Amino acid sequence: MINRVTIPLHQRLSDELRARVASGRWQRGFRLPSEAELCAEFGTSRGPVRQALAALRSEGLITGGRGRPPEVSGAVPAQSFSTFMSFSEWAAGSGFTPGQHTYELARRPACAEVAAMLDVPADTPAVDLLRLRLLDGVPAMIERTSFPADVGRLLFDFDTDSGSVFAYLRDQGVPLARGHHVVDAVAADPFDSDALQVPEAAPLLRERRRSMAADGRVLEASDDRYRPDLVTFSIENSLEARAPLTRVHSTNDATEAT
Amino acid sequence: MINRVTIPLHQRLSDELRARVASGRWQRGFRLPSEAELCAEFGTSRGPVRQALAALRSEGLITGGRGRPPEVSGAVPAQSFSTFMSFSEWAAGSGFTPGQHTYELARRPACAEVAAMLDVPADTPAVDLLRLRLLDGVPAMIERTSFPADVGRLLFDFDTDSGSVFAYLRDQGVPLARGHHVVDAVAADPFDSDALQVPEAAPLLRERRRSMAADGRVLEASDDRYRPDLVTFSIENSLEARAPLTRVHSTNDATEAT
Repeated sequence: MINRVTIPLHQRLSDELRARVASGRWQRGFRLPSEAELCAEFGTSRGPVRQALAALRSEGLITGGRGRPPEVSGAVPAQSFSTFMSFSEWAAGSGFTPGQHTYELARRPACAEVAAMLDVPADTPAVDLLRLRLLDGVPAMIERTSFPADVGRLLFDFDTDSGSVFAYLRDQGVPLARGHHVVDAVAADPFDSDALQVPEAAPLLRERRRSMAADGRVLEASDDRYRPDLVTFSIENSLEARAPLTRVHSTNDATEAT
Repeated sequence: MINRVTIPLHQRLSDELRARVASGRWQRGFRLPSEAELCAEFGTSRGPVRQALAALRSEGLITGGRGRPPEVSGAVPAQSFSTFMSFSEWAAGSGFTPGQHTYELARRPACAEVAAMLDVPADTPAVDLLRLRLLDGVPAMIERTSFPADVGRLLFDFDTDSGSVFAYLRDQGVPLARGHHVVDAVAADPFDSDALQVPEAAPLLRERRRSMAADGRVLEASDDRYRPDLVTFSIENSLEARAPLTRVHSTNDATEAT
């Protein structure tokens, strides 16, 4: 009756390495054993060890990579603002090649729902971007993002198939300063199903995000749907460190509209 | 083609209040306007204002409640260790009455999957707890938890329909010190569907958790499945504060087993 999960080897390895940091056995500045030494200690091949190290690196727990031996950088796994906001930066930092395919970049009057997300009156011009995101060529996420017109217009001078919209907008001086994220689960609609190559109504991990300037102006709002067999979210908490996210009750939750 | 979401009023209110804290407009120690003043400012009734304040309180952003006027406590929404680990404590802190119905509390040899979660050899005696959790009487989450035998045996002296297992174990001296959580989405199986009153294969928000002592010993492992229309996870990040959780690539992700 009780369903259980098998934890893949690289996740058990990264759990163990995280535990060594969290318990203080490996302190800040500690130089990690070599990949060969870790393979020998855990009796595994290099692949899972590399995946585990990449996970810790993407969390900011260890430094190094590309020749430099990794060292413990801090005790609370976390991602920098840009790594958490940017799929491209996160993917690259985790050892994957990020990819994207643009379905449309459209200027249109904000419908009521987009207007609410962007905090502008309905029918204000807005820009909608719909993209498929890939990891090493595998469809991993569908991104439905809206921008106020003055921000979105910058994208008509950008090849949205070329890489990170976040990095481009930041380079253009768009003052992205903070994000508010709500994580839930949603059934794949026919479009999601086709794009992500999953059955219709398959469960997807959804992150809804509003990105703001320091003064609270909404600069971007997105509905990102991940294949949960490819991407999950991970959190550590402890007696010393407050939990890094909060459960939220959502009666009368966001209702779908087209 | 682009699905959008309508943000319910209380969430927009709590977003706005969070933005005032994050932007520094409301600094630490700032005394919030009264409920009546907030109702007047936003042109709403008291219900959404109270829900928004309860959300901020459950995140640790504001103090007060029950007569004391709320004050801004800090700028990073977060939950204490016990609030994040305990469904009961979180629910009560958010203004709901938590409830639970126990399907079974069973001692049995750990199958391979439970053994992997608990980090013990297969067939080691373990204790499995299967409970439905409720918010104000509404089924909200299915909890499948396993314990090493020496921890789980404590539960045979506890009425698991009476409240928080986390609080009970802590009071019994079980040294829960940190948690590792993985959040994804999963389709409701027939049991989930029946218990949570959702269609079979409906998307559920899943939190898999391993709770450990300071030395890394696993004291509890759980697979908690939430109705996403009732509970979501919320995260804030900013240029100043590192993201409080991390995306994790999960190829060869946990595979379901019975």
